[in-house]
Amino acid sequence: MRHLPVYAYLPVMAETTNSGARERIETDAQAAALVQKMRAGERRATALVITELERLSTAAPILLRAMQPYLGHALVVGFTGPPGAGKSTLVNAYTRHIREAGKSVGIIAVDPSSPISGGAILGDRIRMTATLDDDGVFMRSLASRGYLGGLSPAAVRIIDALDAAGKDVVLLETVGTGQSEIEVIGVADTVVLVLMPGSGDSIQALKAGIMEIPDVIAINKMDHPAAKTMLNAVRSVLALDRERAWKVPIVLTEAQRGENVDELWAKIGEHRAYLEREGLLEERRRRNLAGEVFAVASARAKAHLQHAVAEDPELRRLLDEVADRHLDPLTAVREIVEKVSRIDGDGRRG
Amino acid sequence: MRHLPVYAYLPVMAETTNSGARERIETDAQAAALVQKMRAGERRATALVITELERLSTAAPILLRAMQPYLGHALVVGFTGPPGAGKSTLVNAYTRHIREAGKSVGIIAVDPSSPISGGAILGDRIRMTATLDDDGVFMRSLASRGYLGGLSPAAVRIIDALDAAGKDVVLLETVGTGQSEIEVIGVADTVVLVLMPGSGDSIQALKAGIMEIPDVIAINKMDHPAAKTMLNAVRSVLALDRERAWKVPIVLTEAQRGENVDELWAKIGEHRAYLEREGLLEERRRRNLAGEVFAVASARAKAHLQHAVAEDPELRRLLDEVADRHLDPLTAVREIVEKVSRIDGDGRRG
Repeated sequence: MRHLPVYAYLPVMAETTNSGARERIETDAQAAALVQKMRAGERRATALVITELERLSTAAPILLRAMQPYLGHALVVGFTGPPGAGKSTLVNAYTRHIREAGKSVGIIAVDPSSPISGGAILGDRIRMTATLDDDGVFMRSLASRGYLGGLSPAAVRIIDALDAAGKDVVLLETVGTGQSEIEVIGVADTVVLVLMPGSGDSIQALKAGIMEIPDVIAINKMDHPAAKTMLNAVRSVLALDRERAWKVPIVLTEAQRGENVDELWAKIGEHRAYLEREGLLEERRRRNLAGEVFAVASARAKAHLQHAVAEDPELRRLLDEVADRHLDPLTAVREIVEKVSRIDGDGRRG
Repeated sequence: MRHLPVYAYLPVMAETTNSGARERIETDAQAAALVQKMRAGERRATALVITELERLSTAAPILLRAMQPYLGHALVVGFTGPPGAGKSTLVNAYTRHIREAGKSVGIIAVDPSSPISGGAILGDRIRMTATLDDDGVFMRSLASRGYLGGLSPAAVRIIDALDAAGKDVVLLETVGTGQSEIEVIGVADTVVLVLMPGSGDSIQALKAGIMEIPDVIAINKMDHPAAKTMLNAVRSVLALDRERAWKVPIVLTEAQRGENVDELWAKIGEHRAYLEREGLLEERRRRNLAGEVFAVASARAKAHLQHAVAEDPELRRLLDEVADRHLDPLTAVREIVEKVSRIDGDGRRG
């Protein structure tokens, strides 16, 4: 059995050690030192910073402040698509390609959890560890729920951390179905939709306008006999959308063999050039930042409200009355909001 | 050309007239009178009540109060599944079947709008108008976005209106992909997943645990040569889930001809009996009501925050600083939340 170098396991180890005894990050100087370690390629520093940002700990604003001068360098590419299409394998192959071009990579893989049961996919991540056997790659899994303010702002903060750490490319991998998963892909600069022969539901969703047209489409498992049928289906859907300035390229790939990954890389590069030419890159990033502020602020207000209801027997009684159908929900809302803040029940300032 | 009776067009007409000159609903007596009209089968009254609840107008709490004594009767069945599977046709056929059994039906069809472009599906709704040519059926389309507090609480309020209007069955139809669409189906008592031959992505999503296992599965377009393959795929996914007390029945349907709709009706009835036996029906309804209170209260707090930022040049300046990377987002959150309310930046009461 071949032994992997220790650093290949570090993201997981850091997660474990951090939850117990954590380093103190209380001053701007401590945060700046940690950011420098991150930039020097210390995996443990990057893992620690990401954990603090993920949890929105008291260290998070101090760290974000220290990171500000180093932001805006990384190209953010999102990979989305139905489960089973081969996203992880393609991300893996794409990562290898970027590394061969001498660039460093950060990977954020959103572990899709079911909206009700909370069950998550395992297994895909194990296949990806091969990529981790390289100092120029940092991978982090994100659960798809449980972040104050939601998944997208959490992803924006972690992209910032990888950007500040000096990564040239950040890859964001997510299944295209599920609550917050559709939103999170919107924070990427370029979105790649990965389909495979058999992705009939996705084609229907694209055609119906429910699924947003991505920037690049990869049809993976190109050796499959039905690959050509899928290519024609994708083409006919794209033909419906003549208004777009950017013409969506379709790339046939075979991720397992790394086939046509160079072509994918070229198409993503063309899209990046297009965004820069049109000034759209800066616009999207500004929107992401404003979105993060609003989402976290709203979540704080919501958390405050839930906390108040949990602690106040009077407010809990209101909820019981609603459940027993003795009080209508909107009157309960008014009473709760009025009691908790100076806001009146309609959201105006009292 | 055959003329449809006037009431077949009423839901749409009411929507239009309401936006201009609306009836005044300011007292409990006015609301009670309107609820009685609704219960007497006056379409215009039902349409008006739903519009007020949808918009969360000042009349909404008064109406909900008047509706309280009449709630809890209707059975709520959700139909979900990928676009193109034939949900609308099946809902149509199912509605006809329920009407033949002498029961009244309310239909809420969520018009899926794309998360970014906001584009909606048309056409499906037109096919459904045939069902409307009947006084025992009331149909309403809901856009999938734009409600204060979200789609699910809006759907709960409209289900309540149809319930108070005396409908025996409320059908909630929604595409299973998209932001709030996955959540909304959770308010139904029984969830029917409609698949068709070619729904490969949905099978993968079920297998991966991303899509919640529904209560009943209908494989529509049963005449398709690949229907048997789909049936086997569904069976093998369900076989993975041995823990569930409720064994999910699979019904092969051909909605266009109304085939096996009676079997679907029987299976939904069995699930309803199971829920009642286990006391799960009441539990789900209590959870829906509590969820509505929280969602609307949080949305009010959020609206208040956005309003404050829009009006206050000092707060707008903070957002600009974040976009220019001169201020980190979390410090901006703290300053905004502190300024807007007595809540301190971490969500605790000041």
